[in-house]
Order: sequence, then structure tokens, then C-alpha cells
Amino acid sequence: MISVNSSSIAALDERKRTQLVNSLLGFKPALLLGTRNQSGNTNLAMMTSITHLGASPPLIGIVFRPHTVPRHSLENILSTGSFTLNHVTSAMMKQAHQTSARYPEGESEFSATGLAETYSEFVHAPYVAESLISLGLSFRQQIPIVLNNTSLVIGEIEEIRFPKEAWHEDGYLDAEQSGSLCASGLDGYHTTERLARLPYAKTEGWPEKG
Amino acid sequence: MISVNSSSIAALDERKRTQLVNSLLGFKPALLLGTRNQSGNTNLAMMTSITHLGASPPLIGIVFRPHTVPRHSLENILSTGSFTLNHVTSAMMKQAHQTSARYPEGESEFSATGLAETYSEFVHAPYVAESLISLGLSFRQQIPIVLNNTSLVIGEIEEIRFPKEAWHEDGYLDAEQSGSLCASGLDGYHTTERLARLPYAKTEGWPEKG
Repeated sequence: MISVNSSSIAALDERKRTQLVNSLLGFKPALLLGTRNQSGNTNLAMMTSITHLGASPPLIGIVFRPHTVPRHSLENILSTGSFTLNHVTSAMMKQAHQTSARYPEGESEFSATGLAETYSEFVHAPYVAESLISLGLSFRQQIPIVLNNTSLVIGEIEEIRFPKEAWHEDGYLDAEQSGSLCASGLDGYHTTERLARLPYAKTEGWPEKG
Repeated sequence: MISVNSSSIAALDERKRTQLVNSLLGFKPALLLGTRNQSGNTNLAMMTSITHLGASPPLIGIVFRPHTVPRHSLENILSTGSFTLNHVTSAMMKQAHQTSARYPEGESEFSATGLAETYSEFVHAPYVAESLISLGLSFRQQIPIVLNNTSLVIGEIEEIRFPKEAWHEDGYLDAEQSGSLCASGLDGYHTTERLARLPYAKTEGWPEKG
């Protein structure tokens, strides 16, 4: 076991520090953010800094940095109020990662990587046809994070698309059964194997202490 | 493939909606939040709504709901300015999940579940001794999310503790090698298998389009 403290972290060269800090939480969602501007041009961006905010209303938060590739995605969200989040599977892993390349203005990451757009009546933004689980969202709020000039963009779920057999009776949507990947660091992609779904925890009936 | 829209989501019974919405992003970090109040009483809470905010300074964001079990954890963070995040492994999965039970005021989830506290010179809050990868953080800011009465609590990394062999030369910290789990929904725990770490994406040299 080694310990690295804040001054040692700050002293790392920038690439190494970025890799390290991006991998600190372990595993993250692996999602493709789909948007379309008002002229109909589409954008697709790999995102992993995304979190559940609440179930009622169903809200999701995405962290945006100010001057990075997904900037066009953010502009599209703000101008159209619409975006999608699409689960990445192993069959589309390389294409999903490739969306983070800096394509020229006006070139869609859909056509550049060969992923297909598909549309729904509920959402203006494009879905990724290859994804088995996809979410359509409406923009609700952008909250600035002044500490590092990022922002939290909050969306509300308008539509969920998934294979019928992935939906358990109790409401759990089985991403593993649908082959969704998780991400690590800036470039790691992983399949999963479920160990358990554990029962709701109660203070009584817990004999395994110690 | 089925589609569920926002009015159908709102019409679900509350438990089913909560399960569904909590599982929409696929996989999430599985982390134990360790805190200690000013009298020295410790708290430990399972958290999955956590995201990377930036590498420089190294910032992490945690979503807190107002009236739930981790409330004491939030009070401790605000009063002491200190908390830890500890990766959950399969050996401690049941104990980690059990921390979400509603233990009486004053009973630490450490002693209730048999997980061990350990301390460092850099951080006031307790680490989980059984975790192989742990982060010590200082509180930086609490941002209210008025849409659903939650808040985003931002911490800055003060210390990282991990097995030396898990740190790759380029800075990537290998959570999979250390046996860290990921979470799904409210109660799913998964091991991972890495498919790849993909090279930095460039627009040239991408022959796999279409």
C-alpha cells in the first residue's frame, strides 16, 4: 500500500495526473451523448462524468468542461433543449471511443465513426441505433461549478428505450444482460459480471457482523 | 425493444420507478463514504451517485438527498470538512451494502457491520481498512440543486491510498486489478473484466468507419 498526498499529486506531470484522477472512482457509466443542432447537424460524444440525481422527477446530471470536444454537444443541448444518452456495448466500443477525436466543424461523429442515428417522436436529439438501452432527455438547468470552471447540466428523462427482457418485475433495468459496458479512467472499457442483487438492508437480521 | 415515456414513468408505483431510474445509467462507482463527527463518532455510508469533476485541482462531486440515511455523513462533512471514499471489493460487499440500514443515532456503521476504521495523518475522517483503494478528501463547496432538493457536495483529493502494483506507468490506477466492484440500481454489485484500454482518439488513422 502506498499513499500519495495532494502535493505529490500536484507535482505529477499533467498527463499522468489526469489519468490518475480520472481513474480514482473506479468504474463509471459508459455513455454516448447524442445531440442535434437547429440546422439538423448531429453530434455524438463519449461521456463518463454522469450521475443519477433523483428518481422523482427522474433527473440525470452531466459534468461539462468548458473547452473540450463535447462543447458542440453542450451548445446543442442549450439551443434545442434535447439530448440522448446511449449505453455503449462491446460491439460498438471502438466507435464510441473514436467519437472523442477532434473532428472538423460540421462533421458528425455519427458519420465519422459509422454509428447510425435513429429518432423517436418524444425527443429531438438522435439516438444511437446500435445501443440497446437509450435515454431521451430534456434540458432542465445548467449549474456553474466555479471551483474549476465546469458546469453540471441537468436533464429530465423523457423516454427510455430498452429490450423488454431487460426489465425486471421490480423495476430494475438489467444493463448487464443488455451487454452495457462500464468505463475506467480516460480509456478503459469493461464488461461486468453480477455477483448479487442484495436485499434491502435492515438493522435486524444481520448476523454477519464481525 | 420497448419505449417508456415520461408519463408512463410517472405512473409507475414509487418503488418500481425508483428501481428503474436508479438503474438507467448502467454502472456506477461502488464507494463507502467515511466520516467522523467532532466527538469522534464515525459514520459509513454506501454511495453511488458520485462523479469526477476535474483533475486539476482534483475534484469529486457527491449527490446528497436531504432526508436519507447518509444525512449524518453530510453533517459530519460540513462540520469537520473531511471525508473518505473507499472502493468496495467482493470480500466486503455485504458489509458495504449493510451500511445502508437505518442504525440508531450514535451507532457507527463500522462497528455494526464489522468493517475496520483506519486513520492517516492527512485526513480527519476514517478510512475503511478492508478497502484496497481509498481517497481522502477535504470539503470545498455544497451546491444546492433546487429542482429536487438535493445538493452536490464537492471535495478535493488530499490523499490517495492504493496497492503499488495497481498504478500503471502512465498514471492509470487499475481498480479492476484491486478487485473494486461497480454498482447498478439500488442493490446490484458487479465484478468487471477489462476489454481494452484504447489509444487516444485521432481523426487520422481511423480505418474502421462505416
